[in-house]
Amino acid sequence: MKSFASDNYSGVHPEIIDALRAANEGHAGSYGADSYTAGATKKFKTLFGDDAEVFFVYNGTGANVLGLTALTNSYNSIICAEGAHINVDESTAPEKFLGCKLLTIATADGKITAEQVRNRIQRIGDQHHPQARVVAISQASEYGTVYTRDEIVAISKVARANNLALHMDGSRIANAAVTLGTDFRAFTRDAGVDVLSFGGTKNGLMFGEAVIIFNSALASDMMYVRKQGMQLHSKMRFISAQFEALLSNDLWKRNASHTNGMAKVLGESLRSIPGITITQKIDANGVFAIFPRHIIEPLQKEYPFYVWNENLNEVRLMCSWDSTEDEVRAFVARVRALVGTRQ
Amino acid sequence: MKSFASDNYSGVHPEIIDALRAANEGHAGSYGADSYTAGATKKFKTLFGDDAEVFFVYNGTGANVLGLTALTNSYNSIICAEGAHINVDESTAPEKFLGCKLLTIATADGKITAEQVRNRIQRIGDQHHPQARVVAISQASEYGTVYTRDEIVAISKVARANNLALHMDGSRIANAAVTLGTDFRAFTRDAGVDVLSFGGTKNGLMFGEAVIIFNSALASDMMYVRKQGMQLHSKMRFISAQFEALLSNDLWKRNASHTNGMAKVLGESLRSIPGITITQKIDANGVFAIFPRHIIEPLQKEYPFYVWNENLNEVRLMCSWDSTEDEVRAFVARVRALVGTRQ
Amino acid sequence: MKSFASDNYSGVHPEIIDALRAANEGHAGSYGADSYTAGATKKFKTLFGDDAEVFFVYNGTGANVLGLTALTNSYNSIICAEGAHINVDESTAPEKFLGCKLLTIATADGKITAEQVRNRIQRIGDQHHPQARVVAISQASEYGTVYTRDEIVAISKVARANNLALHMDGSRIANAAVTLGTDFRAFTRDAGVDVLSFGGTKNGLMFGEAVIIFNSALASDMMYVRKQGMQLHSKMRFISAQFEALLSNDLWKRNASHTNGMAKVLGESLRSIPGITITQKIDANGVFAIFPRHIIEPLQKEYPFYVWNENLNEVRLMCSWDSTEDEVRAFVARVRALVGTRQ
Amino acid sequence: MKSFASDNYSGVHPEIIDALRAANEGHAGSYGADSYTAGATKKFKTLFGDDAEVFFVYNGTGANVLGLTALTNSYNSIICAEGAHINVDESTAPEKFLGCKLLTIATADGKITAEQVRNRIQRIGDQHHPQARVVAISQASEYGTVYTRDEIVAISKVARANNLALHMDGSRIANAAVTLGTDFRAFTRDAGVDVLSFGGTKNGLMFGEAVIIFNSALASDMMYVRKQGMQLHSKMRFISAQFEALLSNDLWKRNASHTNGMAKVLGESLRSIPGITITQKIDANGVFAIFPRHIIEPLQKEYPFYVWNENLNEVRLMCSWDSTEDEVRAFVARVRALVGTRQ
Repeated sequence: MKSFASDNYSGVHPEIIDALRAANEGHAGSYGADSYTAGATKKFKTLFGDDAEVFFVYNGTGANVLGLTALTNSYNSIICAEGAHINVDESTAPEKFLGCKLLTIATADGKITAEQVRNRIQRIGDQHHPQARVVAISQASEYGTVYTRDEIVAISKVARANNLALHMDGSRIANAAVTLGTDFRAFTRDAGVDVLSFGGTKNGLMFGEAVIIFNSALASDMMYVRKQGMQLHSKMRFISAQFEALLSNDLWKRNASHTNGMAKVLGESLRSIPGITITQKIDANGVFAIFPRHIIEPLQKEYPFYVWNENLNEVRLMCSWDSTEDEVRAFVARVRALVGTRQ
Repeated sequence: MKSFASDNYSGVHPEIIDALRAANEGHAGSYGADSYTAGATKKFKTLFGDDAEVFFVYNGTGANVLGLTALTNSYNSIICAEGAHINVDESTAPEKFLGCKLLTIATADGKITAEQVRNRIQRIGDQHHPQARVVAISQASEYGTVYTRDEIVAISKVARANNLALHMDGSRIANAAVTLGTDFRAFTRDAGVDVLSFGGTKNGLMFGEAVIIFNSALASDMMYVRKQGMQLHSKMRFISAQFEALLSNDLWKRNASHTNGMAKVLGESLRSIPGITITQKIDANGVFAIFPRHIIEPLQKEYPFYVWNENLNEVRLMCSWDSTEDEVRAFVARVRALVGTRQ
Repeated sequence: MKSFASDNYSGVHPEIIDALRAANEGHAGSYGADSYTAGATKKFKTLFGDDAEVFFVYNGTGANVLGLTALTNSYNSIICAEGAHINVDESTAPEKFLGCKLLTIATADGKITAEQVRNRIQRIGDQHHPQARVVAISQASEYGTVYTRDEIVAISKVARANNLALHMDGSRIANAAVTLGTDFRAFTRDAGVDVLSFGGTKNGLMFGEAVIIFNSALASDMMYVRKQGMQLHSKMRFISAQFEALLSNDLWKRNASHTNGMAKVLGESLRSIPGITITQKIDANGVFAIFPRHIIEPLQKEYPFYVWNENLNEVRLMCSWDSTEDEVRAFVARVRALVGTRQ
Repeated sequence: MKSFASDNYSGVHPEIIDALRAANEGHAGSYGADSYTAGATKKFKTLFGDDAEVFFVYNGTGANVLGLTALTNSYNSIICAEGAHINVDESTAPEKFLGCKLLTIATADGKITAEQVRNRIQRIGDQHHPQARVVAISQASEYGTVYTRDEIVAISKVARANNLALHMDGSRIANAAVTLGTDFRAFTRDAGVDVLSFGGTKNGLMFGEAVIIFNSALASDMMYVRKQGMQLHSKMRFISAQFEALLSNDLWKRNASHTNGMAKVLGESLRSIPGITITQKIDANGVFAIFPRHIIEPLQKEYPFYVWNENLNEVRLMCSWDSTEDEVRAFVARVRALVGTRQ
């Protein structure tokens, strides 16, 4: 079965499998005291600066929540898009673990603006009110759109001016980097991001994400917080080795470029089918489209996917590193056939 | 490098690697909606009963803490050994996530007794005092000892009589099962255990543990709690496939038997060296020994290991599924040589 | 100084002071084991039914947060008005103590509707998403409006149909009861409310609120939760005696009737001043009005009050049990004079 | 009824009642923006230094838990006596609100020693282990004993040397000050205490305690934490006015001197009765004694009191500011009579 349901339906890239096998030799120090972790950390430091602090964790929720602990006290609020993963897809992990409130902003495309952020900051210094302390953005966003560097800089400026920090959920950061055509640093650290969740699983890893902290003063507690947050892996080399491979030979870029390309093909092909509307820019690996209602259920039986907005019949289709053009073509053909069956 | 520092210094068993590769075919439903998870769950139900509920998680701390949420309210206390992993090696994850207090019992061998538990239950019904609600035991214990079935039944009876539940940290449960010579069920569910952390990582997995809940009424919240607890893996098949392999062809038993056997050889060989005292029964895969102080540092340079009690010069040596008799013999020879250098 | 800034600027009603002095005789059992607590509890049971459970606490935030613990697990969400006290004026106490997310609904008048609640309930059974479990309403609302009994019943029906509970923040419940002209029970328990914060401080007490739980099965943990929540008073008689007095000789009603009446006079008088717009119905003791910008600061110097909406120049004026008609008239005269100074 | 059950069985001192009535004039700013709060704060600054930060809260649990937030991260542990109020009489408020573990030390007299503290500090820098960060002592202790200034200094030195802070639960601090014969500052701030819970309720107040923070850098979050911790009173003047009175005209000292004196009389009188053993030094207002088992229940029917150690028949008797010598004599006579009835 190959589908367009989610980029976590896909498996593990062969080069990652190879790295895992190569790492499976003899004994290694646990909890990160191993050469793979040193190697992967070094690769991240090459990307983000020698003083960037790197903490490997299990999953995206863990990366986001732990990263946010570095920036918040429990009486703080975190400004984010209404559809942000931390707001709608991580149960109440942020509230439970941080104690913080999420202050949401309605968006049309998953991206919040500097102006919206400015308006959301209220009652600073008022002991009764949750104190806004972080702006959290997703890059790429949950709607498959990508913030430009300028948009991030603008948000960062508002944040700084109000003593807020900037967090980035980069579970699909490779897809964004490919789209922007820059290195990672340009639109993260250099654009004002303080803490980054660097995604791995959605880009071909078996498991593993990384929390990158750009201000090392903020990182002093993180090793304790990671353990407390149940995100410290004993056989750490098996996360680190995957990241080492992902950051070698441009694997991250090859995967993301291919995936984004498949989404472009998928989106453009669907757009040409009468009755189908593409609702979002296809910046990364997701395609959002309004489908005729009558095709959704039959199509889901053959190709699982999520309906993102029930009222609008808007569906989400995600490409993965292993999506092939043949599969995309076959899917589009099936959509076209179903659309024709009845209107 | 091969050492006796920890059973998480070892890598992944080849059959597990094979299972991971086999599972890496095509797409699979995420978050457990896949055939591997169904298969592994079925194997657990065969072991523990059809109504046992199984939740795969990332690590032992996650398994313990989430399992305890099924048994506690935040005003409860949890009775455990002073040296229990949940008390001394999981940062404050239990306190932070559960809100509960850990009520500790000093032990000579890592095992608490029914009588000690009875004495620790106090002030029930007193709103000012943390209300004891769970007894938590580790099987095998952190000191390499194993509770007999009768010991567990006795604890369970005291627990039941006082309206407490029984939790078992089974991060080394396979080692204990081999020692007891029974199936898992005999000394868990059938002995009165309510919730079990079933360990995988220390017995040859790359990552992954399982929370097994024997009373399905206690399991109704767990899927939400697992997500909230940042322990839900997206590409779940890669945990499940490992457990499926571990529970197939007696891999769990082969690994644990071998490991326990190596510990026996290690312990008996060390015992014959003058100046070395074995401090605990060697029931599982750990050997605790008092070493002459002058050999500890030189030996650690060649073979990393932990000093368990600085004051006593007591060290912990752990065997793994991949420990070989040659390695054990070489290590013992080195110890013998170092002991001889000076007294 | 007498002002219209808040109903907690006022002091303590003389009959309450008398009750406190009367209770200050000899020794009394602590933590509620005293005759005053028995007496006040009995008065509440007379109002709400013999099986209502009553827990005295220190303040409104405590009452709300503890009451919500009886209804939630930490992975739940609580649906409330955007301007609800629990959302904007209790720091992050709900998030920190409950772990829950607050799902907000924008309102024009502080009141949410059954239809809005229905639309906010989403993704039930989806482990990734906070699970809606409670609807929380404030009676009277933070905008001085009062839900009719029918409105509450309608919300309750939607809640019940979706397995949600209904919580009422009644910090100004006496004001609402006077407006509705019914007993408390008609628009609380009998309208489908499960847990009620019954306010005292804003209606003439020195300190103290009560959590009333209508389903005693939900109350079994509350005595422990209250202690854990730092809301259990040792010299409890001094809260209880106040409530006993408040519920005797219709003191609650006399105070609330007077206060509501003063708000009516204040609102109607202001409405007649050109350039002033009353923005909300005056159902209880609050008056919301748009003032000419130029009068706000000068007026605040003489009479402190809060600007509720900076953009609109909307201010909040609250009457208290001790507000007098002379004071209202003097304030209105001052407003009228300031309005005339410049336009 | 007058008893020796607890110092919170007593009522409110007449001078405090007078202060409450005097404060009940007109309106006052809420949440501490009032002249009474300014006045009481000033009195505390006179006692402890101008840069001491003062936060009034409702009760002792609130004072302790909030004060400890100023000193801890959630991955920390707090070293305290096994019988410390925070460990055995505050439910799991510390664990729930702080996330921290309490590391207990067994004591014979309620007081921990510098040497015991030193031994309890372990595995600093080890991410797996709760990181010791605070030593918490009670002055007077829960066993009615008082730390000398030298004992506190010695503990403080160990704490400082290990980067730990020192917290004092001063719910009975006035009793200790009278015993030591010094000002408060000598055995708190000047002896190395960082944060102090200054008790009021047990020394004649109706309600109210104060958190005193000696390092103002630690106080920056406290106003938010107090609100979040549900400990911010709206009509704050009614706490502050009580403290202003307590710190005026030596009321705190008169009360504590009298109370301590009554305990001395009670203890010495009991000591002379055959079969009764006084088990603790009578440094403050508590008397601990082993009673003949046969007198306990009959005596409790007339005079409620707590059995502190069931196994030993050890009881706790507490004197209050309103205990009279006649009452003490009558109680002792009753004890003597009961002892004589049977042996």
